[in-house]
Amino acid sequence: MTNFSSMAKALRSSEIRRLMSLAADPSIISFAGGMPNNSLFPIDIVDKIWLNLPESQKQIAFQYGPTSGYPPLLAALTNYLQSRGIPTTDGSLIITTGAQQAISLLSRVMLDEGDHVVTEYPSFIGALAAFSSCGAILDQIPLDEEGIEVEALKKHLDAANHMPKMIYLNTHFHNPKGITYSAARKEEVLSLLENRSILVLEDDPYSELYFNEKDKVATIPMAATNDGRTPLCYVGSFAKILGPGMRLGWLFGPKEIVEKCELAKQSADACSSTLTQVIAAEFLMQGKLPPYLSPLRKIYSRRAQLMLTALSKHMPKEVSWTTPRGGFYVWATLPEHINATDVFTIALSRGAAFVVGSAFDPAGIRNNCFRLAFSHTAEEKIEKGIAIIAEAVKEVLAKL
Amino acid sequence: MTNFSSMAKALRSSEIRRLMSLAADPSIISFAGGMPNNSLFPIDIVDKIWLNLPESQKQIAFQYGPTSGYPPLLAALTNYLQSRGIPTTDGSLIITTGAQQAISLLSRVMLDEGDHVVTEYPSFIGALAAFSSCGAILDQIPLDEEGIEVEALKKHLDAANHMPKMIYLNTHFHNPKGITYSAARKEEVLSLLENRSILVLEDDPYSELYFNEKDKVATIPMAATNDGRTPLCYVGSFAKILGPGMRLGWLFGPKEIVEKCELAKQSADACSSTLTQVIAAEFLMQGKLPPYLSPLRKIYSRRAQLMLTALSKHMPKEVSWTTPRGGFYVWATLPEHINATDVFTIALSRGAAFVVGSAFDPAGIRNNCFRLAFSHTAEEKIEKGIAIIAEAVKEVLAKL
Repeated sequence: MTNFSSMAKALRSSEIRRLMSLAADPSIISFAGGMPNNSLFPIDIVDKIWLNLPESQKQIAFQYGPTSGYPPLLAALTNYLQSRGIPTTDGSLIITTGAQQAISLLSRVMLDEGDHVVTEYPSFIGALAAFSSCGAILDQIPLDEEGIEVEALKKHLDAANHMPKMIYLNTHFHNPKGITYSAARKEEVLSLLENRSILVLEDDPYSELYFNEKDKVATIPMAATNDGRTPLCYVGSFAKILGPGMRLGWLFGPKEIVEKCELAKQSADACSSTLTQVIAAEFLMQGKLPPYLSPLRKIYSRRAQLMLTALSKHMPKEVSWTTPRGGFYVWATLPEHINATDVFTIALSRGAAFVVGSAFDPAGIRNNCFRLAFSHTAEEKIEKGIAIIAEAVKEVLAKL
Repeated sequence: MTNFSSMAKALRSSEIRRLMSLAADPSIISFAGGMPNNSLFPIDIVDKIWLNLPESQKQIAFQYGPTSGYPPLLAALTNYLQSRGIPTTDGSLIITTGAQQAISLLSRVMLDEGDHVVTEYPSFIGALAAFSSCGAILDQIPLDEEGIEVEALKKHLDAANHMPKMIYLNTHFHNPKGITYSAARKEEVLSLLENRSILVLEDDPYSELYFNEKDKVATIPMAATNDGRTPLCYVGSFAKILGPGMRLGWLFGPKEIVEKCELAKQSADACSSTLTQVIAAEFLMQGKLPPYLSPLRKIYSRRAQLMLTALSKHMPKEVSWTTPRGGFYVWATLPEHINATDVFTIALSRGAAFVVGSAFDPAGIRNNCFRLAFSHTAEEKIEKGIAIIAEAVKEVLAKL
């Protein structure tokens, strides 16, 4: 049975969901949702793809497909993964109903009640919920600007009574912290994990969204350089490069693990939407991804810059924040004694919102941080929203 | 952790999947797959719906949606369920990634390792796999022409050391047996279950596909007449009334159960495809369902009639079969000592296929039956395929 008490704790449903629903009011300048802006989807491209599809392929789109995925999409994705340096002949690939399902299937396949999973602090709430729903115990290791703190990880593994079954890493343009693992750090982590039989789950949904071409090299996944040192599953998503409404992600990893996930998927939802898989396959095969991403990267880069400039201009000196080189997020840190929910409450009453840090704490406690997503907010509103939040921070600071 | 040994047993992966993959050869006349024919999907209607959608709604289709479902689809589906006589104010409704996910979420929410689930014999393989993956023990009760055998069910419940947590019923145009519960049988089952606190899972994906208007009344679900006697969840699907590739189903039931399923869905796949939900919502709201279904019913009826006529003409007297009044399936029974896999092997070598009965036996053993789906096969091939299978039966009979 699903471990609801753990999962509900991880989702902090009563509290976080309440705060998120407040932030959904369209009159609010919201930096809460980790999603693309509605105006940025490749609707015209997809319209053309659909219109030009032969009838026989539309019929396939309406039909059941193989549980592992629509074969032309698997083929196109294999090419894509190879272009990212991943040795695809060394493992198996399946399509999943969003990256969330890949994480969920892997959790169900790997984790028993009471198993330990190492996560970063802070970490992605959806993954924390999936691990917790299987009754896993979450051991958190802090992140610095270059990735998970290797010394702390080593100390943890050397001292652990319960060796973790899995370690969950979000390597590029981190959600929520906005940082990117350095090449050196990736290497240190892989060396440390060598021969320990701990499964690495590398979750990489944002890697295509680098702001500058020179940072493309920073997005070489651990899956490309692991070279068999440790079992590793690589999870990706079409949510940020086509649209979350497609509900398409993927899982690449060791054959024996991915085959179990495929079996679990068979009873979970039989297959992912063939209709959206046909669209995604054409999107890749017709070479639509690079010309779509090129302007998109500039747009996100500009939004990030606007947010960083606004933070510098408005935030009091007690607040620090990360400087992302891609993705959707800035992570802001308040003095330790400040509760981000107090800031949230004031900011919301004046028309701006974000997600409080406790949502990303595997233990659900630490709350002197918050996540700002710049991906979803119109450029002209970013500074105004940040100014509101900065005023709220100042008020909370003044009260103490 | 997912109970793989049980699930693999339920899926009989090595054997059934091997047989199914053989039947997938396009030169084979296959009665194996329980799916609509590719030529029957409402592609033109969906093309028009998509083309006429305002840009703002297409944007919504590309975006994340609420875990519970796209609100206009929930509203349209609520109207639909009310038209089927279901008191929708007495429970909650969520959209799922196919009916398979509804069954899977409910299993994960309700079942612990070792819990008992009552299923029909024969029963739907996807549900058996979902229950087994949670470690459930399957207690099977036979079906007669009017539904589950109530006396056998009563005897089982009265004698059971382990009271079942759930009972799984496919009430209309049964998969795989083709029968439909009589109104009297539905009533007897509900009366028997009153105050026993056993959750009824009524799975009803085929009810719109009655062959004759007079049989519409036979499809009033137990969910409509239960009147609170026993906790009941009602599961349906867009697979048979729009297309399986949409991956859309639904779960209606008691608020406290459905809310837990929604929480489990949040970590399972966050939400179902918004793109296909927007299409399905427009399909219902624009009144496209009735004019699409009307000719479809006639087509399936004609195919069923062709199959029944061919069975009468070609099958030896030792074989009996059910006479469906709707849906996709005929269930054929051989003498007890005949193994359907022997028939399958000969039939396949001559160009015709079906699914052997053991796939639908919760214990995976009994194999003197087989399922014939008429939904997927071109009319002109039906008699030829049945003749091949009949010859194979005769050969196996002659050998013994």
